[in-house]
This record gives sequence, C-alpha cells and structure tokens, in this order.
Amino acid sequence: MRTIDWDYEKNNIIMIDQTLLPKEYKLIECATVDSLCEAIQSLRVRGAPALGAAGGFGVALSAFRSKASSLGALLDEVETAGKKIILTRPTAVNLSWGVKRVIRAVEEANNTKEARMFALDEAKAIADEDVKKNMELGEHGASLLEDGDTVMTHCNAGRLACVDWGTALGVIRSARAQGKDIKVISCETRPLNQGSRITTWELLEDKIPVTLITDSMSGAVMRKGMVDKVIVGADRITQDAVFNKIGTYTHSVIAKEHEIPFYVAAPVSTFDFERFEDEIEIELRKPEELKFFGTHQIAPLEVEVYNPAFDATPMENVTAIITENGIFYPPFLIDEVK
Amino acid sequence: MRTIDWDYEKNNIIMIDQTLLPKEYKLIECATVDSLCEAIQSLRVRGAPALGAAGGFGVALSAFRSKASSLGALLDEVETAGKKIILTRPTAVNLSWGVKRVIRAVEEANNTKEARMFALDEAKAIADEDVKKNMELGEHGASLLEDGDTVMTHCNAGRLACVDWGTALGVIRSARAQGKDIKVISCETRPLNQGSRITTWELLEDKIPVTLITDSMSGAVMRKGMVDKVIVGADRITQDAVFNKIGTYTHSVIAKEHEIPFYVAAPVSTFDFERFEDEIEIELRKPEELKFFGTHQIAPLEVEVYNPAFDATPMENVTAIITENGIFYPPFLIDEVK
Repeated sequence: MRTIDWDYEKNNIIMIDQTLLPKEYKLIECATVDSLCEAIQSLRVRGAPALGAAGGFGVALSAFRSKASSLGALLDEVETAGKKIILTRPTAVNLSWGVKRVIRAVEEANNTKEARMFALDEAKAIADEDVKKNMELGEHGASLLEDGDTVMTHCNAGRLACVDWGTALGVIRSARAQGKDIKVISCETRPLNQGSRITTWELLEDKIPVTLITDSMSGAVMRKGMVDKVIVGADRITQDAVFNKIGTYTHSVIAKEHEIPFYVAAPVSTFDFERFEDEIEIELRKPEELKFFGTHQIAPLEVEVYNPAFDATPMENVTAIITENGIFYPPFLIDEVK
Repeated sequence: MRTIDWDYEKNNIIMIDQTLLPKEYKLIECATVDSLCEAIQSLRVRGAPALGAAGGFGVALSAFRSKASSLGALLDEVETAGKKIILTRPTAVNLSWGVKRVIRAVEEANNTKEARMFALDEAKAIADEDVKKNMELGEHGASLLEDGDTVMTHCNAGRLACVDWGTALGVIRSARAQGKDIKVISCETRPLNQGSRITTWELLEDKIPVTLITDSMSGAVMRKGMVDKVIVGADRITQDAVFNKIGTYTHSVIAKEHEIPFYVAAPVSTFDFERFEDEIEIELRKPEELKFFGTHQIAPLEVEVYNPAFDATPMENVTAIITENGIFYPPFLIDEVK
C-alpha cells in the first residue's frame, strides 16, 4: 500500500494514518475535502512529495463529490476546494503545486465527466511520477553502497514521506533489491521522533535490519566503526548548504571527523540554487515539543527553549548529492544537475 | 536545601525526590534503612557524590534506629544495614565508599551513644567535604569563564548529582558568584532527559538563565556562535579518555570543529589513571528507554536498540580538566593532578 492512493471502488482517497504509527497500522479513507484537510493538518499524511500527491488527489476528490451539472459550476467548486486544501499547510510548496497542476488538467475538460477523468488521471500521474523519480534516484544511489554496508540516517526520508520507495531510504531499498546486504542505523530524531516512530517502522515492514539510537549516539557509533555511510534527505538545497531536519549538521561534522561519506538524497525539485543559506529563514517550532512527550512533562514549564525545525549543512561537509538525474559532486553546478 | 541531609529533629534522612522533578519539588524523609534503600533503587537520589553521602547517612540512620543495648550488637546491626545499602546499586563505587567510611568511624566508639555520634559526624563530614570540594573546583573553573559567556552543558553535573553546588554547574555558580553574567544552554540528554528534567530545574531555581535544546542541536548552536564554552562532568577519567553520559563525545567533536573550549569538571576521585579506555566496559541499558516515554510508545516494540549509558571522549578533544586541586591541561599526568 502506497502512503496515499485512490480507492477506485468508492472513489475516495485512501492513506496510511501516520499519527498512529508505530503502535497501529491503519488505513483511513477521506470521502470529503474536509476530511482530507483534517488529515493534512493533523499530519496523518506528511512529507513534501506525499503532500504533492495529497493536493492532487484532493482536487480529484472535489470533482468526484461535486453535484454540479455544468462544467463551469464544477470548475468553481474545484477551485474553491483547491484553495481550502492549500490553506491547510500554506508553506508546503508541493501541496499547492499538486493542487494547481490538477486544476490545470480539469480546465482542459469539455464536460463534467471528462473533468473527473482528467483530474484523477493527473493526480495519479503525480503519484506515479513521484515513485518513478524515487526509484531512479534509488538506482543511482545504490551504486554508492557496497554489500555489507551499514548506513546511518536521520529523520524519515522514506516511503512514508513520499508516495512510495523514498529518497534516502529509497537508496537503501534499491541497493537491497540489487542483492546487497545493507543494514541501517536510525537516529530517533528529536523532538518529534520521526526516526524512531516512522523510519524504523517502515524498514521493519520491509524486513530491512535497523537499529535505533538516540541522536547523540552518532558520535559513539561512528567512532566505533559501526557506520560505513550516512544518507539523509533534504528539505531545500541552496547553492551553499543543505537544509534538513535539525541534527543533520551535527551528524555531518561527526562523519567528516571519521572520514565517513555523507550523502544527501533528494529530487531535483529540492534544489533552490538561486539562493544562499543566509536568505533562508529557519522555522522555529513550539517550545512545548521539548517540554512534553504526549502528556508526559519532561521540562519545567517556564524554561526557555530553542527549537529550530531544520539546520543547514555547508556543502563542504557533503560528499555527494543523489538525485533522479544522477549523482553530483561538489561544486554542484546548477546546470549540471538539471 | 541540600540534595540529601540529616533531619536533627526526627533523626531521619531528608532528601529531594528527584523522580518527581521538574513537575514537583518534594522533600521525602527516610526513617528506616529499608526506605532509604527504596529511594536509592528508584533513583530518588542519584549521582556519584550524592550516593556517597546517602551511604554514609544510611549507616548513621541504622545506628540511630538500633535498639541494641551493647556496642557489639549495634555494630552487627550497622554492618548488616551497610551491606544491604551497598547492594541497592552494587556498581556505584561512591555508595560503598560512604558506607564503609562511616562503619569505620563507628568502630572507634566506646559505647552505643558514642557510636551514634561518631556515625552521624562522619556522614555529615562526607557531605560537607563534597560541598567544599565542589566549591573549590568551581572557584578554579570560574577563572576560565568570562563575563557574558554562554556555556553549553550535557546531562546533569549539578548540585542534584552531588550534595550541593555541583561540578560542571558548580563552575557556573562560582562564576556567577564572582559577578560574571553567565548563561547556560542545556542539552536535554536522551534517553533519560536529565538535562531537560534536572539541569534546567536546578538552574531556574537559582535564577541562572538557561535555554533547553535537543542534543542534536549542539551543532547548529555552535555553528551560529551561540556557545562560548562547553563544560561537562565525568563518570570516570582514564589515562586516554573521559567517560561521561552518552552524547558527550559528539559534543566534543562539534566543539573542536568550531574551536570552542571543551572543559571537563570532575573531582580527583573520578580519575582512574592506571587504566585505559579499552579496559572499561560501557554499561548497555534497556532498549525500553528508547521505545517508551513514560507509558507513551515511540518506537516499534520489535526494533533493535543500541543504548550505551556512556561514551568515551579521547583526551585530544579535551581542552582542560577542572578539579578541586586546580585546572589541568594535556597530557594530564597523574602525579600532577593528585
């Protein structure tokens, strides 16, 4: 089952509810745009590429639920729904990209029946393209891994952040598909524990051997020679730095100290080569994420907290960037990558 | 209130229940050796120096509770109690040291009344000496801090690990007592969060400005120039490495990368200069510590976990070691330190 897909029997969106992992694997159906919006806002579906597909399927859903008898009326409904979906996570570039792409497809239709067909075909195409790109990326990246390697990763750049296969974890899946024995060390990834909750879950599901550590153990495991390569994903890549989940920079310094290759796996769409690190503002998240674990209080309520969502890893710490167009080494010229 | 002390009105042991922090500050009394043993086992009192005092006070408590009419009978009771206390945490060297030191004092007594007096005086002396040593250590260390410095620390090497004042946090207290404006960044210290639960609590109690971060953020904050010095405690110092809470080594590499001084604050009793790193076995703790937070499940139950309690930081990453006998720089010759 993909992270998000279309149920052709009921013409609903179907997805894995990621908020329940690892305790429970549950598929949920969204029969209305409102229930999809709730699912996006509650992070039942998350990860940039997965949100692109969610936006696309959301527009298709609104076309299928519409009772409009004229094409014009249906188009109005679809546009209203699209705006509503985009507003659930306004900074998620992929979400609005997916919505707009499917709306453009609907605009090509000649009648309401065609509108529904075009919408669903386009949404499906977004999902399929994502999987294809990840598998190409994975194939390129797999060439960097040797039989017997242990790969350390941070956060979740896996199939559950995408429609399927994943980026950093896609490389590992491709290498294993080639018959290489690859083991994984997953950092728990504080404060939201995507590593312990999601990465370990999806690797276990695929029977890929994985060992969970705290983020602070990366030094100890690399010094002990337990790590052959590090592979992480990326949220944005500027000309001079890779923005990824907080903690990535720390791991890159430790990897450099121990001469362990540090790879970034990300589709070309992640590149923002016209900008530099100091132009990017890093999202500061709620202090509560460090003060509570569920309802369990783990810090004084009045303590000051610094909680950036991402950090920036300078390019000199990056061995190579793995994309669907191939592997790129410093200085990562934009023309070469695209 | 010290971490652990003697209640002269009731002749009981009184301590801060550290398992309830930061949510609740509660003093508990131990009126029997059994209740003290429970408190040690449940980590209501923890930290090597604090356990030394707990052992000492425990022997005094057994002498006060004894109904023996002869000195010989009292001595038997005290020895039985001492053995029981030591067994609560058999690897805690300071605990048995404290027990044995007070038993030796009791053996000098000529009657049961004297036995009780000698026991309590000796236990009090252990506690007082610990505070005095920490204040001397703090005074030496404070000379390394400048007005306006921000110090990053890991875990809890504070007053709650000792009888009072603390080692790493003692240096900060001494510097502030000298009128220097010192701020602290506390790493939460996964998996047991001594940083977020205890260090932030005791600093806030003393109105020392403190900012809480996840362990993985140490790279980001050092790269941003937010840290002037790092000070950590130590569990054991061999000729070639400092053993301390897991994550310490990672911070030391980041500090080196950014040319930030990395100090270890520890009493001379921590030195084990006749041994080398590879002779020391590192305690592996329960996988459950990374799978649950309280009752909250954060990882698949079947995932493999690597959970060492400590890591080893090689001496080349250590700028200096701060002790009650002064500050020592590499190569830390044993004769010089003692």
